[in-house]
Amino acid sequence: MNALGPKQLGAAFGSSLPLPNDLEPTIESALRYVLENPGSLVRPQIVMQMSLAYSSSEESARDLAIALEYFHTASLLFDDLPCMDNATQRRGIPCVHLIFGESGAILTALALINRAYALAWRAVSSCSPAQQSRGFAYIERYLGVGGLLNGQSLDLNFGALPDNQETTERIALGKTVSLIRLSVVLPAMLGGAPAHHVRLLERIAVCWGLSYQILDDLKDLLQSEAEAGKTVARDLSLGRPNTALAIGIPRANERLRRLIRLGDRALQCLLTRRPDLSFLEDLGNNLRDEAARLPERVYEKEARGEA
Amino acid sequence: MNALGPKQLGAAFGSSLPLPNDLEPTIESALRYVLENPGSLVRPQIVMQMSLAYSSSEESARDLAIALEYFHTASLLFDDLPCMDNATQRRGIPCVHLIFGESGAILTALALINRAYALAWRAVSSCSPAQQSRGFAYIERYLGVGGLLNGQSLDLNFGALPDNQETTERIALGKTVSLIRLSVVLPAMLGGAPAHHVRLLERIAVCWGLSYQILDDLKDLLQSEAEAGKTVARDLSLGRPNTALAIGIPRANERLRRLIRLGDRALQCLLTRRPDLSFLEDLGNNLRDEAARLPERVYEKEARGEA
Repeated sequence: MNALGPKQLGAAFGSSLPLPNDLEPTIESALRYVLENPGSLVRPQIVMQMSLAYSSSEESARDLAIALEYFHTASLLFDDLPCMDNATQRRGIPCVHLIFGESGAILTALALINRAYALAWRAVSSCSPAQQSRGFAYIERYLGVGGLLNGQSLDLNFGALPDNQETTERIALGKTVSLIRLSVVLPAMLGGAPAHHVRLLERIAVCWGLSYQILDDLKDLLQSEAEAGKTVARDLSLGRPNTALAIGIPRANERLRRLIRLGDRALQCLLTRRPDLSFLEDLGNNLRDEAARLPERVYEKEARGEA
Repeated sequence: MNALGPKQLGAAFGSSLPLPNDLEPTIESALRYVLENPGSLVRPQIVMQMSLAYSSSEESARDLAIALEYFHTASLLFDDLPCMDNATQRRGIPCVHLIFGESGAILTALALINRAYALAWRAVSSCSPAQQSRGFAYIERYLGVGGLLNGQSLDLNFGALPDNQETTERIALGKTVSLIRLSVVLPAMLGGAPAHHVRLLERIAVCWGLSYQILDDLKDLLQSEAEAGKTVARDLSLGRPNTALAIGIPRANERLRRLIRLGDRALQCLLTRRPDLSFLEDLGNNLRDEAARLPERVYEKEARGEA
């Protein structure tokens, strides 16, 4: 029972969407472009570890991990379109729509989504009927109007909302936390985890998901394009939601550290019952490491009065 | 055991995607706009009748019918976008993206798709595990790169292909036949129909699906905007695939009548074993009726040398 490493997950990411021989060349090239350029794959690694810890077979664990990564990748393809974030770079390379057109990017994203539902179905189908229903309802809710889609719609229509922390966190709960919930909570749910554990995992997903978003907001203001591997400082120029813009860099920084701590606390509580989930500590450690790389610049910027 | 009428199906179409209270207003309005304006609902009626004929419960039959109609509706929302067909009218009213923006149309389509997979899963989950696997593989194939998405991509990149009947029918097999297959063949497959019956149903879906497309191609050239309820004569102006443009109106007309007959023949063969499927004759009759309304204009146009 072994979770796959990044290299093996990268191979699974690249090979889990079989392309038929008579596929139209534009969508074929666009799909290859996306499948050959996975992200960091931290999330699918967590999904696999969680699934295996909750007695999933290795095959189902991989199916669920790749399914969620395909959903995530598809959401990025849509987000990057001119009618949404109008981005130019993603995962260190030009956005799909810049090379294969907007229609090419849309059809590629839909192919990923279609395959993702099939993989998710296969992963879920080995569970008991009650867990299947619960799992599918969870997937539907957080990918749909109860999660990701509402978050993206709030994000796009941010101008009509008050620019404060409540708004930015409501958006992050939809856009960012939804997929983290699916990665962390769903495998436990499918494995029949007791309600108390599911609640703790939900708290971890919320705290660390919001942390991840604030970190991204701070990076958007502070990092260079080369470092982030995508188009940056767009939030400011496009009037997009950004907690650090809404409440200032120092308060965003404080909020980030508080959320990381709250997530840690929930995890420590869970680890007293399930010490085998200690791999989740890596998530908190990654957040802390990334946060630790920010402060110097945070204070530099403040000193220069740019924030 | 009763298939729903158009009115009840319209109500089911409108109410099968529950909207949460805190939904962002743009996506909420866009979803209501779409859910309150269903198409003719001929397809979901066939899905229900087929499902009930193959021993599905009424609830599962309705779930599958609405799921397929949501997939279909979502595909229309994408097709109508400026980067695809750039249409202005659909189902007799302005296209979603013209009122709620391209991002609004995309998120609305994704909400329909997400709900459709959930409804399809619910419909399929009451079948035996073997039928579930087969059914999901069929859904995945014909919605994905093996069907609808390949058809749309071929359509968009039509300029790179030879403008002949093989091309236009390859596109129609992907774009049009895929959803008709899912409507006609899938319910039988889920109900454990023998392989011979499935093959006959596939033949019916192909013949009538291609007929439907040729009819649409002829209408695009011949009908006025008000009659068709959507933007017309676009194929000619945009250089889009159209069998009647590729081989001429009279030959397209012949091909249409031949395909309708071939579909009829397959159906008559099936009806000797399953006389209870005689409701499928309505499909052939509708095609024949619509075809019968064309000729006068076909010859008028020819006489004026416009074809």
